[in-house]
Amino acid sequence: MKPGGEIDLISRLAQMAGAAAAKDPDLLVGIGDDCAVIVHGGGLLAVTTDTLVESVHFDLEYFDPWHLGRKTAGVNLSDMAAMGARPRWAFLNIASRRRLPPGFWDEFTDGLLSRLSQFGAVLAGGDTVSSPDGISLTLTLIGELIPDKWMGRAGARAGDIIYCSGYLGDAASGLQCLKAFRRRGGRGRSLLLPQKRPAIRRLVDRHLDPEPRVALGRALAESGLVSAAIDLSDGAATDLAHICKSSGVGAEVEASLLPISRAARSVCRLYGLSPLWLAVSGGEDFELLWTVPPENEALMIETAARVLGHRPFRIGRLIDAQGVCLKAGGRVADIAFSGYEHIV
Amino acid sequence: MKPGGEIDLISRLAQMAGAAAAKDPDLLVGIGDDCAVIVHGGGLLAVTTDTLVESVHFDLEYFDPWHLGRKTAGVNLSDMAAMGARPRWAFLNIASRRRLPPGFWDEFTDGLLSRLSQFGAVLAGGDTVSSPDGISLTLTLIGELIPDKWMGRAGARAGDIIYCSGYLGDAASGLQCLKAFRRRGGRGRSLLLPQKRPAIRRLVDRHLDPEPRVALGRALAESGLVSAAIDLSDGAATDLAHICKSSGVGAEVEASLLPISRAARSVCRLYGLSPLWLAVSGGEDFELLWTVPPENEALMIETAARVLGHRPFRIGRLIDAQGVCLKAGGRVADIAFSGYEHIV
Repeated sequence: MKPGGEIDLISRLAQMAGAAAAKDPDLLVGIGDDCAVIVHGGGLLAVTTDTLVESVHFDLEYFDPWHLGRKTAGVNLSDMAAMGARPRWAFLNIASRRRLPPGFWDEFTDGLLSRLSQFGAVLAGGDTVSSPDGISLTLTLIGELIPDKWMGRAGARAGDIIYCSGYLGDAASGLQCLKAFRRRGGRGRSLLLPQKRPAIRRLVDRHLDPEPRVALGRALAESGLVSAAIDLSDGAATDLAHICKSSGVGAEVEASLLPISRAARSVCRLYGLSPLWLAVSGGEDFELLWTVPPENEALMIETAARVLGHRPFRIGRLIDAQGVCLKAGGRVADIAFSGYEHIV
Repeated sequence: MKPGGEIDLISRLAQMAGAAAAKDPDLLVGIGDDCAVIVHGGGLLAVTTDTLVESVHFDLEYFDPWHLGRKTAGVNLSDMAAMGARPRWAFLNIASRRRLPPGFWDEFTDGLLSRLSQFGAVLAGGDTVSSPDGISLTLTLIGELIPDKWMGRAGARAGDIIYCSGYLGDAASGLQCLKAFRRRGGRGRSLLLPQKRPAIRRLVDRHLDPEPRVALGRALAESGLVSAAIDLSDGAATDLAHICKSSGVGAEVEASLLPISRAARSVCRLYGLSPLWLAVSGGEDFELLWTVPPENEALMIETAARVLGHRPFRIGRLIDAQGVCLKAGGRVADIAFSGYEHIV
């Protein structure tokens, strides 16, 4: 389950479902991680599901259907990456309003399938219904885990070091550009993104078409070097807080270590935003964040760099405390759960 | 996938996903049956998913949250029943509008869990998001199948006899009562259903809280006597047409054999409706419909009667043709796919 602004409802569901779920010996992980983990037939399955709602998670002013399909798949694939799963079977539920351009669902499906097939997953079922209002999309993905070689949120310990796989705040900066362009009355992605501005285009692509870190997730999981992992859907402050809560530890993040791209800094200057704030609370980067015991650090860096093509970014460490602290200069701020709310 | 009024979109998805899905040796059944069937480890999994949208599939004028939870579970459990699966793990996606009565989601979850636990399933995950408009609910259910002991839509042959498990048209009659009451300005289920009218109450309950035929489905599947099966979500005409299409046969339904309750006939008289029409095209009865080779008929009747407490209803036979014919007196009408569209 992904908490956005609805943490209360999720906690309540987890609480109500918990007693029965805890008695199921085949449900290793239930509500409260990136994927549920199920024992079946001698193997392990990871299951994740996400819903994207028009005007909440996406706006057709700047999402063409192909990119919407890509993102619908990418969001779930990223959850698979977080556990180290191999994605296999997808189920798509479409609640569709009328009056969509002809070919809309063909283009959407084309985008969706292009992302799924990239990672070896197929569309195995779903449901299509009509909606009186906006579009609502649910994708459920089932993947396979290697027993004893998967990552969860609960294994981190004080002293472990925190890493992430890429720039933080890029997707949120890209979204800012898209919103600003909409305010100025522009329509369509091609107008917004002249070839002269490849840096802006890259930021916008990070919002429209995030690259799920499936290969990295599998490599880290198989290495057995990592103590906990999560994907960055709601922002580092919130997602790291989930690891802390599940593992019973605290975190100290060094502001100076946060990887923020030059392009994101330029956008922040242009729109008067704090790059640091976007890096910790801007959601939807869909990078991985993980923790590693110090003795595994060197080998983990090698493993991650082999997949990424660059070293992963160290951003802080876990401490024997509660919450998530951001250290900037001499100041320390508690940023736990100060996350991005999915409001377009 | 459940075709309602969206058969075109489903066909298109199936077509686009088909080539890749067909190459997956572990996907025995993909888009186009009640559940997908997946080989994993040494076992078989059945996966189904359904979306219910406010103002399309339900109306809060006559659905209290507890019954809405029961029905959300029931619809998916019925798909499990159709294949003979044992339901195990459920995933719930809620897109919720604001301004719901306090306790709404608690009551909903209570209803949902009561139905799931009745059949041994637990809530293992999901997603909760906000919606600018109505409520949209998606439940995905994973169940277990016994290898070589499960039912699909594709095994029926000409000469097989068609059976169903209970009254047809009850749920649609109940919905008529609920709608009529709404037109008269009544609110709330208790006003509508005085204890003096238990027959009407039973019909309304068939719409609000259908009983999924999980035990029957498993008994029929384990017996190995049945050639094809489906659950009656869209009406006998449409659901039987799915079996015919998947199996490459036609069907002849005898109007005089259709099981129509006395209460449903009364409601039809009251509102000027055709009981026969409701029986073949009124959806959401969530009874099972199945086909049986003549040589297995006697033993199948025993098996079904043991679970149901009464004999199942023979309603027609499969023929070497296309489509679904309804024989009433001397007349014959093609009724294939003349189904219920989920419009409240």
